[in-house]
Parts: sequence; structure tokens; C-alpha cells
Amino acid sequence: MTKLKNDRLIRALQRKPVDMTPVWIMRQAGRYLPEYRKTREQAGNFIKLCQTPDLACEVTLQPLRRFPLDAAILFSDILTIPDAMGLGLSVIEKQGPRFEKVIRTKSDVEKLGIPDPESDLRYVMDAVRLIKQELDDKVPLIGFAGSPWTVGTYMIEGASSKEFSYAKGMIYQDPDTLHRLLELLANSITEYLKAQIDAGVDVVMVFDSWGGALSGSAYTEFSLQYMEKIVCEVKQASNAKDIPVILFTKGGGMWLDQIADTGCNAVGLDWGVDIGYARRQIGDRVALQGNLDTAVLYSNPERIREEVGNVLQSYGHGDGHVFNLGHGIHPEINPEHVAVLVDAVHELSKEYHQ
Amino acid sequence: MTKLKNDRLIRALQRKPVDMTPVWIMRQAGRYLPEYRKTREQAGNFIKLCQTPDLACEVTLQPLRRFPLDAAILFSDILTIPDAMGLGLSVIEKQGPRFEKVIRTKSDVEKLGIPDPESDLRYVMDAVRLIKQELDDKVPLIGFAGSPWTVGTYMIEGASSKEFSYAKGMIYQDPDTLHRLLELLANSITEYLKAQIDAGVDVVMVFDSWGGALSGSAYTEFSLQYMEKIVCEVKQASNAKDIPVILFTKGGGMWLDQIADTGCNAVGLDWGVDIGYARRQIGDRVALQGNLDTAVLYSNPERIREEVGNVLQSYGHGDGHVFNLGHGIHPEINPEHVAVLVDAVHELSKEYHQ
Repeated sequence: MTKLKNDRLIRALQRKPVDMTPVWIMRQAGRYLPEYRKTREQAGNFIKLCQTPDLACEVTLQPLRRFPLDAAILFSDILTIPDAMGLGLSVIEKQGPRFEKVIRTKSDVEKLGIPDPESDLRYVMDAVRLIKQELDDKVPLIGFAGSPWTVGTYMIEGASSKEFSYAKGMIYQDPDTLHRLLELLANSITEYLKAQIDAGVDVVMVFDSWGGALSGSAYTEFSLQYMEKIVCEVKQASNAKDIPVILFTKGGGMWLDQIADTGCNAVGLDWGVDIGYARRQIGDRVALQGNLDTAVLYSNPERIREEVGNVLQSYGHGDGHVFNLGHGIHPEINPEHVAVLVDAVHELSKEYHQ
Repeated sequence: MTKLKNDRLIRALQRKPVDMTPVWIMRQAGRYLPEYRKTREQAGNFIKLCQTPDLACEVTLQPLRRFPLDAAILFSDILTIPDAMGLGLSVIEKQGPRFEKVIRTKSDVEKLGIPDPESDLRYVMDAVRLIKQELDDKVPLIGFAGSPWTVGTYMIEGASSKEFSYAKGMIYQDPDTLHRLLELLANSITEYLKAQIDAGVDVVMVFDSWGGALSGSAYTEFSLQYMEKIVCEVKQASNAKDIPVILFTKGGGMWLDQIADTGCNAVGLDWGVDIGYARRQIGDRVALQGNLDTAVLYSNPERIREEVGNVLQSYGHGDGHVFNLGHGIHPEINPEHVAVLVDAVHELSKEYHQ
């Protein structure tokens, strides 16, 4: 029994009938919005923005003031957990995240503990509570975390990476240590998501940004296995609340069946997969979220409407579709084009829900 | 009727019986070899190394002196064509390629012409002739080019890119100009590959490094279509010689069927795809090339043999497999580990060819 005034997202994730396809946008609170850039400047830097609940709340709400989106997503970062573990996160402009300490040996892993969300990550929980209060149940709030593998790659590499030499090297050189780290991360992420749910989020999403860098068998063993554990434990803990869980592996188009089998409610798709193909492949076990190519937003309103129509048509009639981009929105995108996108989804999707 | 002393690669690409699975390695002539680093230093920089036939020949042959590889691959770069078109290529250490001029408008495209391989890219053809002479038909020589889409992204962005904002923006904003550019590139690449064949290469491969950044429909229209054109024209022109063509789209695991339908002889696989799954999917229409995870080479000889065995087993009995990594080898890899890999492929594959 939801109190939400707009519960389209929740219903779609549960594959229940909706009047229109719900839509939200990965990184909807982000640099393409001038008001976001202003608040970020006010905060001083990206990390301070994440760590200051009223500013995190502010940027979370900004896109909702502009567009009739069907969800808010907590403004935060997937690296809050390793930062809370004491690795010393900094984010360097145009270079990305960097950790003071890296984790590469068994003894490195043994020194790590599971952060207590309400003390070590209090600023996140405070932000959730504040956002929920401000949202006043207008739309659901999505909480999130990075996947163990994805968060682990940053801890092992110490920064962004293209080839993941150390992290992938560990798969074949020292899988036991890697498993210990991933187990610890899975437990930390589970606690973190449970705390976000307690603080009020209505949906949780796990971002596996770098699962696609793995071979199929390594993906199953080192990424998916731990996401499955998280899904299972979060589901168990939040039974009464029935919080939907979305899993998103960028570049995971070849493993959709396996992802759907984890017990999650929805699978996020990047734009490499045809959403109609994905639906036929997976069947009606889970909802699907995605998957317009972000680059469509560089074009003009007419073309945006056309491409939105193509994604809707590819998914086809019936429930279980949450519209989104296939990755995050780029900073260069014109906000007016996002307005066109959101309106097009609502308008053009009605016929698929009759 | 080949004069090659070792024609395993050619036979495997034609899905004919072989005694052992042939193996070569993407970027086998590269920075992981100390002798390569020495020759590169001698050349001054990467571009000069490509442009000096006797040094390009030298580095092409270096890995063959160390390992019993079943093929040599021409040492060159996928950006020789836009450089020959006058875009002014430079390669900056640790940053990658950069062009003085970028191509973003119809009038930019209209100023471009098709390079004449024997004059504008003479250094490549001279390198091919020299390598063929030095190889003395011991193993086949693979020639190559980038795909139109992949080469086009560099011309449009002016450098390496993660998001391809301009190139992908053109798909939706100005597809006609993009098609003109890709058409011109397809024609240039066709001429280039035909000239390589005339100069002596025994196999050609097209590297579509960035096809995986596209949506399924954009991949078909803006990348695959042009590769198909190249395959068709190269096949037609080299009819008498029956030169095998390999297509490799990094991140293309979802489109294997379509790639196999182009008329190519072999599909290159990155490590995201299980090679056994790919074989079942594609059937015996084409040979498959790949797809060990490069990161396996960070581990130890035992583990390398085990993982080589896993790829061979996944492909299974019968012909049509060319062993390779799923992407290029990393500079940090120990050359001794490459020796282990090559020996393991030859030794462990015998049972699959009985």
C-alpha cells in the first residue's frame, strides 16, 4: 500500500498496469543543468556536494522542478563505501576518482571493516530522509549502490581504469583475496542498501558499471554472484515493504537471462541491446529499464520523439517497461531536449498501455 | 594452392582440418617486448615506426623469433588512412592519437579524397613487400584496416574518446553527412586492403574497435553495413587468390549472427562472449577467432594453461577455430607468459583435431 501520488515507477517495476510508461534519467541530477553546476560550485567540489545533505537534497530535486519525471534518484556516488572504509577518496576534475590507499593483498583486505551506514555514512542517510521529506511522496525515491565488482575495481586500481590490469589480474592470480574483498563489499553494500530503505527509499538499484569488462565465466563468478547475494538479502530484509530492486550491468547484454535469474525485479539495459530482443529473451520474469542512446539527445526535438517512439515500439504493448537512457546523460546535453524526451515518453507510450 | 610452409591459419579460416589450433595474438608486435621498445626508440616515435618499412618489418618479425606463432600481422595503425587524407596525425605518449583537422560538416567531408595506396600509403605497401620477403612463406601475413565507423570516430572527434559525443551526435543530427564520410572511408579501406593483398598479405582483418559503442540499429546502419561492403568488394577483387577476411567488432557479442552474414570468413570475438555459445549461435558458417581474456597472462604458467584449455574446450572438437586474445595484449605482460600461451594452444588443441 503505497502513499505515493505517482507510483508509475513502482507499478512498472512490479509489472503492473500503468497509464503511461514511467521515465527517469540516469544522472538526471547532473552537470547538464546550470542550477546543478551552481550548487556544486557552492559546495566546493563533488565530494562535498555528496556529503552535505541539504545540497545533495537540492540537486536531487532540481530535475524534478524542470521535468515531470516519474522518479527522483538520490544524489550520491558509488564510492561512498570505500571512502567510509578509510581509503581516502578524492575526485580530480576531468580525471575522475582517486584513492589514497589501494587494496591489492590479503592483508590489505583484512584491515577493512564493514561501514556502519548510520554512523560512517550518516550523510547519505540524512540526505535520504531530507529528500523524502521534501518530495512529500510526489514520486518515488531511488536509492543505489555500486556492485561489489565495480566498487572493488576502484579500490584495487586506485583510480578509474580502462584495462583493469590489477583487478582482472587478481581474478587469475589471487582469486581467493578477490573473493574476500567482494564478499566484504557485498555485505557492506547490503547493509548500506538496507539502511537506505530504512531511511525511506522506495526502490534500490545496483550499478555494475564494469561487469562488461569481464569474460562470461568471470562475470558470473566475480560480479553476478555477489549481486545475487545482495538482491536476496535486501529482499529478505525488506519483505514487508516489498522494495523493488533493479540490476544494471553496463555491457551485460549477453547475460540478461542470468541477471534476470537473480531474483531482481528489473534489469537495466544499455543501448547495445535491442529492448524488444531483450524482452523476448527474458520473457515476463522481470521488468526492463532503458535504453535510449544518450547521443539521441544531441539532435532535434523531432528526431528525439522519433527515437523515443522506436524504443517504445521495440518494447511493445503491455507492462514492465521503465524508460531511461542506456547510460548516464552527458554534461553537454541541452536541458530542453530532456523536456522533449520526458514528454515524448509519456505521450507516445499511452497507446501501449490500453 | 598455397606455398606457405605453415598454413594452419589459412586452413582454420577456411574451416578445413588442421593438426593443431593456430594461434596469433592481437598486438603481438608491441610494447610488452623489450626488443620492440628498443626499435621504437630507434624510430623516434610510433608514427615514424609505422612509416619506416624496414623498422615496421623488424617489429612485425620480432614476436615470431620468440614464439612459434602461426601468423605475422603487419605492424601499422588503423589511422594511416585519415593521415593520408591530410588530417595531420600525431600520437601523444599516454594520450593516444590526435588529428590537426577534424571532420564534422558536409564541406569537411567533401574536401576529402580517396588515398592512392601505392603513392599516399606507399610505406605500408613497401612494409608488406619487405615482410613477405623476410617471412619467406614460413607463416601467413595478416594485413588489416580499421572499420569505417571506427576510423570515422577519430576523424570526427579528433582524438580518442569515451563517449563519442560528436560522432554519435552525427548519427542523429546529420546522418547524411556521416553516411558520406563512411562511404568514402569504405571505398578508401577497400582500395587499401586490395593494395595490401596485391603487395602480398595472405589474410585481411577489419578492426571495428568502437562498433560496440552503438545501439543495435545504429551498429547495423553505420558500422556493419560498410564492413559488409568492404568484405564484398575485397572478396570480389581477390577472387582468384581466395583471401580470407576476418571481422572483429569489440563489444559486438550481441550481433554475431549479423556479422557472420556479411560474407566474411571469420568473426573475431572479445572475451565477453563464450566462444562455445558463439559457435552454437552462428553454426558452421564462419570460423571464430578468439578469445582468451588478456588478464589471464598476468597469472602463472599453470593458470594460463588451464584457461587456454577452457577456451579450447568451450569451442570444442572440429575445425574453424583461430586462437587469440579477446583484445590486444597489454604492455605489462611478461613475454615468458606468451610463450606458455602459444605452447599450450598447440599442445592442448591436438585432441580437438583428431
